[in-house]
Amino acid sequence: MRVGVADTTFARVNMGAIAIDELKRHASVSVERYTVPGVKDLPVACKKLIEERRCDIVMALGMPGGKDKDKMCAHEASQGLIHAQLLTNHHIIEVFVHEDEAENDAELAWLAEQRTREHAVSAIRLILAPKELERDAGTGQRQGFADAGPARR
Amino acid sequence: MRVGVADTTFARVNMGAIAIDELKRHASVSVERYTVPGVKDLPVACKKLIEERRCDIVMALGMPGGKDKDKMCAHEASQGLIHAQLLTNHHIIEVFVHEDEAENDAELAWLAEQRTREHAVSAIRLILAPKELERDAGTGQRQGFADAGPARR
Amino acid sequence: MRVGVADTTFARVNMGAIAIDELKRHASVSVERYTVPGVKDLPVACKKLIEERRCDIVMALGMPGGKDKDKMCAHEASQGLIHAQLLTNHHIIEVFVHEDEAENDAELAWLAEQRTREHAVSAIRLILAPKELERDAGTGQRQGFADAGPARR
Amino acid sequence: MRVGVADTTFARVNMGAIAIDELKRHASVSVERYTVPGVKDLPVACKKLIEERRCDIVMALGMPGGKDKDKMCAHEASQGLIHAQLLTNHHIIEVFVHEDEAENDAELAWLAEQRTREHAVSAIRLILAPKELERDAGTGQRQGFADAGPARR
Amino acid sequence: MRVGVADTTFARVNMGAIAIDELKRHASVSVERYTVPGVKDLPVACKKLIEERRCDIVMALGMPGGKDKDKMCAHEASQGLIHAQLLTNHHIIEVFVHEDEAENDAELAWLAEQRTREHAVSAIRLILAPKELERDAGTGQRQGFADAGPARR
Repeated sequence: MRVGVADTTFARVNMGAIAIDELKRHASVSVERYTVPGVKDLPVACKKLIEERRCDIVMALGMPGGKDKDKMCAHEASQGLIHAQLLTNHHIIEVFVHEDEAENDAELAWLAEQRTREHAVSAIRLILAPKELERDAGTGQRQGFADAGPARR
Repeated sequence: MRVGVADTTFARVNMGAIAIDELKRHASVSVERYTVPGVKDLPVACKKLIEERRCDIVMALGMPGGKDKDKMCAHEASQGLIHAQLLTNHHIIEVFVHEDEAENDAELAWLAEQRTREHAVSAIRLILAPKELERDAGTGQRQGFADAGPARR
Repeated sequence: MRVGVADTTFARVNMGAIAIDELKRHASVSVERYTVPGVKDLPVACKKLIEERRCDIVMALGMPGGKDKDKMCAHEASQGLIHAQLLTNHHIIEVFVHEDEAENDAELAWLAEQRTREHAVSAIRLILAPKELERDAGTGQRQGFADAGPARR
Repeated sequence: MRVGVADTTFARVNMGAIAIDELKRHASVSVERYTVPGVKDLPVACKKLIEERRCDIVMALGMPGGKDKDKMCAHEASQGLIHAQLLTNHHIIEVFVHEDEAENDAELAWLAEQRTREHAVSAIRLILAPKELERDAGTGQRQGFADAGPARR
Repeated sequence: MRVGVADTTFARVNMGAIAIDELKRHASVSVERYTVPGVKDLPVACKKLIEERRCDIVMALGMPGGKDKDKMCAHEASQGLIHAQLLTNHHIIEVFVHEDEAENDAELAWLAEQRTREHAVSAIRLILAPKELERDAGTGQRQGFADAGPARR
């Protein structure tokens, strides 16, 4: 299994290194890393990881700022990531941490690490253990903060 | 007839299981299930269900959260689902229940189940009984809450 | 000339039947009808009418609700309809009547009928009488309510 | 050089006729005109002008209304025009005049004419005199109202 | 290495000339320049630079105005640039300076120059020195204003 890890120099946490660390803990995967300036550079980077460096799945890691303009960049990047998936028939797991989700730098660093690690596990499951995802269907899973849980208990 | 059922671990109701139950009540269909983490992972999952697992139609089941960021995710996912349909010439029935459509967990669970079941019937009609849909054209059908009915009575 | 008529069970007026009635008054056309649940199902239905049922032009008839969520659905559907046109090099005439354009059910029914009939004429002109459209260029034509007219009189 | 001129019956000024008049003043061009009902019909019309009527460049002329719904239509049309350019590798010059940019009908007519004429010159330059555009790079050119000029003088 | 530089006559700073100056300082590159009227003309220009003039990477330089309508144009252009990248598997570095990011013309000119120069370096690194970008992953790099720096110090 070959996993692509695309991240940015714009992010304030080394999400790429965290993703690689977590991936290696769970499976014997080879990793292709691709660092770009910002989130809007991620879609084509992910597509190249799939088509030119033959990854089975890619994690797209980014940390959009808190201003309106940054929200728009994140939206444009997300649409591009979905488009790239449709053009390649491969999953790209978007892991975006918005700077304004955290109250301070320490919480931001914690959140970025936690969400990246949990999504790394999802990436592995999508390729190697889809039945585990099916078992968790509809259970209100969240990445980073606490799970919401099922509506009926 | 082969129906794809794509759902998420993010949802707080097991919409995939409900869809499968309803589909089996109405027709002798084979079902392909595909569970992904969240709604933004649905477009490529649905496209793969059509192209790699040869489904005739797919149900895309999701439960976006109530925050602005969640609304944007749902919007991006919806656009991806429409794009996937245009690339494959197959219908993908979007069944999204927004967490803020319900006042509490019990209503949320009820709404998710009701809407999923009604859309499952639509999916079957689209493939097996298009004349039944034509008969209901312009009659103000709704999925989940009460029908709006025709403007002229 | 073969015209596709795609409409929905969500609409509260039988726009499809009205369109067919008007089309038949103006030209000897054969009609292919395709009824789907809602406006987001229209793009792929229209593309299938063009590619699989060989229509020369398609009318996409819908009646989005008045809530924010409904506006977003209409926006997503509109983008899909434009995309479907670009992929097929065929016109798809969008006829959307927003529920909140009318003050009551009677006006809604009147508006839906009027707009559908006027757009049916446009569809025929696009295929059979493009010079008539050119003659009306820049004259402030509106479908449904009164024309705005030219800015210079 | 063959120029496509796509315009609408919705516009309240005959922008197509103005564009053709201006184009003929500057170069020996042949013109293909295509009038459609509204701005959302322009993307496919422009694509057909390029692919079926072999235009080297197209002007897309429209006059969106001032309401929110009209703004959304213009946005959807703009995205379609960009998409059509990417699918054909040809320029489509968008010339949209929003009804609320002018205070009255006389100003609207003036603005539509002025902007159309200035964009017609841009269209010719893009094909026949790209060096003239390069000479004006970064000089704050505007079409219609007065130029903004360079930030450093 | 061949770099495309696409810029606009709408911008109020000659961003294209600045980009070329900076590129030449860092590497022996050949440059293809393409000046268009505004930001919405950039996506197809960039695609043509890649496909017809064989650039390895392109810089898309623009200066959107401060009004809502200008923000929308920038959004549409950004989506087109991402789409162009996905269709070509080549990076297009978007360098947009919004007129309202600066308080006066002098600051605007400074910001446009600074951001363009820093992005020119990124473009070269993406092609010639990807390991340098990876070394800066997650360090909060910004182009123009001061870097944000890493969240954990």
